[in-house]
Amino acid sequence: MYREEIKVLDCTIRDGGLINNHYFTDEFVRAVFKGVSDAGIDYIEMGYRSSREFAPPSDFGDWKYCDDEAILRVTDGIESDTKISIMVDAHRMLDQVFKPVDESPVDLVRVATYVKDIDKAIAAVNMCHDLGYETCVNIMAISAENEFELVEALSQVAKSPVSTVCVVDSYGYFFSEQIHHMMELYKKHLPDKRIGMHCHNNQQLAFANTIEGIRYDANLVDGSLYGIGRGAGNCPLELLIGFLKNPKFSIEPILKVIQNYMIPMRQELEWGYMIPYAITGSLNEHPRAAIAVRKTENKDKYVEFYSEIFDHLD
Amino acid sequence: MYREEIKVLDCTIRDGGLINNHYFTDEFVRAVFKGVSDAGIDYIEMGYRSSREFAPPSDFGDWKYCDDEAILRVTDGIESDTKISIMVDAHRMLDQVFKPVDESPVDLVRVATYVKDIDKAIAAVNMCHDLGYETCVNIMAISAENEFELVEALSQVAKSPVSTVCVVDSYGYFFSEQIHHMMELYKKHLPDKRIGMHCHNNQQLAFANTIEGIRYDANLVDGSLYGIGRGAGNCPLELLIGFLKNPKFSIEPILKVIQNYMIPMRQELEWGYMIPYAITGSLNEHPRAAIAVRKTENKDKYVEFYSEIFDHLD
Repeated sequence: MYREEIKVLDCTIRDGGLINNHYFTDEFVRAVFKGVSDAGIDYIEMGYRSSREFAPPSDFGDWKYCDDEAILRVTDGIESDTKISIMVDAHRMLDQVFKPVDESPVDLVRVATYVKDIDKAIAAVNMCHDLGYETCVNIMAISAENEFELVEALSQVAKSPVSTVCVVDSYGYFFSEQIHHMMELYKKHLPDKRIGMHCHNNQQLAFANTIEGIRYDANLVDGSLYGIGRGAGNCPLELLIGFLKNPKFSIEPILKVIQNYMIPMRQELEWGYMIPYAITGSLNEHPRAAIAVRKTENKDKYVEFYSEIFDHLD
Repeated sequence: MYREEIKVLDCTIRDGGLINNHYFTDEFVRAVFKGVSDAGIDYIEMGYRSSREFAPPSDFGDWKYCDDEAILRVTDGIESDTKISIMVDAHRMLDQVFKPVDESPVDLVRVATYVKDIDKAIAAVNMCHDLGYETCVNIMAISAENEFELVEALSQVAKSPVSTVCVVDSYGYFFSEQIHHMMELYKKHLPDKRIGMHCHNNQQLAFANTIEGIRYDANLVDGSLYGIGRGAGNCPLELLIGFLKNPKFSIEPILKVIQNYMIPMRQELEWGYMIPYAITGSLNEHPRAAIAVRKTENKDKYVEFYSEIFDHLD
């Protein structure tokens, strides 16, 4: 699949940081930045810019805040055409500092939001847009939202200056026909916006669904190295690059970071396909119960876990 | 997705056996048979019925031969409506013994073949059909076949008494549009046959592609417990059952076998998504080089492996 407009965003550090409270070493972040840059990836998402009021520094690493200084520290000296993205939560905007874009290493601000917080998301978009940043809205958990209200939110976002809106399958619930439906819905209600795609791998459908998004005109697609991300993780970047027949990408730098960093890291941090995530995904539930059970000695008691989740739905 | 005609075949013992030369214990095979039966799965494939001339018993376990006696031994005393399938290789038919169907526990014989051996496959179908067995042809490696010759083979099979023909993505290469294309091709040239689907997970697309097959009328679909199978493995049965909203299936017996047997077994036997399989899959190559490298100390040297495979294609 080749289409010049398709841009790829690596969310290794950002979504991976949800597993370890954003405590990645500078060495690792530099290696990812260099690998992703050498591979020709369009964007790299470094983490969140969170308020230290909401998220005390005693509990989180640097990539929870993504201060400009931290970003400059890990990108310094590395040749790169890759744009830098950070994420903010619409409902947790408080005292974060944003300089004008030409004084910051950041290019893109992605605003994560729920449907109910769409006004806050648009306020954040307006603020960042006025400072010169490219902006994007990620409406989360849409598989469990009321579609009437989702459409209302999309219609509001349509009038904002945001350039991109991502279809986000937070629960890893969608399969192809539902991705097609969402793409058509987003295109219809956001006629002037670029549509993006961020998938989760609860049912091993993250890569497949990203492909389906691309088939239906998604032009900003997320992947992460070896699929790292909270719970079942994301669309593996290496698969995405193999699929996109764009000569501007090269896969070797990505394979190098995977073999040198991701494989050893997978011994320490857990992510990827596991039965509890398959269960919450197939039942269209938030993965939080699955994430919790994986930290207990009952982590492989699947029948028990299934009963609990299923009974809770009754 | 609910369609009464959709039948599910569990190939845990058969495709899983390719990892360990078919040395599964009776205890394990009985547990799988019981779990799959309790879950309401339509078919279980026990292994191959190979010639002991071609495959000496010193090198293989019982499930390489699937003698009627071995099958009766592991199914004895277990209540089940699940039909029993075995596989034969069309190009390795020699002295295998097949009793008439009413003297055997076997219901279905699946004939695996390459396009070039289609005459041998049809001969095996005729022999088994005459003995009263349900029959199926699995044409392997079709992503690397000449489509003109594939169509010729399908047209020959169309005239045979076989009841089902499976689309088999041996290399784990296809994505949705190619599955749709193959389904249309098979339906066109096999107007009176049931079409099936057997996918591999090299690019994490086995479940997604099985869904795409179902969307395009595949009515016999393969899955295996926790996706066990050679190399990257197969479509995970647990995901398939979660997707098919057929009340005749229950997932708990499957989860039970996974937690009791597959998770411990995964510590001993290797299968599932790994970078070398992603590489051969995305390059439309047989996974044999990936399987081989995983048995060496270079198993995680992905850049080197990629260069080797890529240079070999030059």
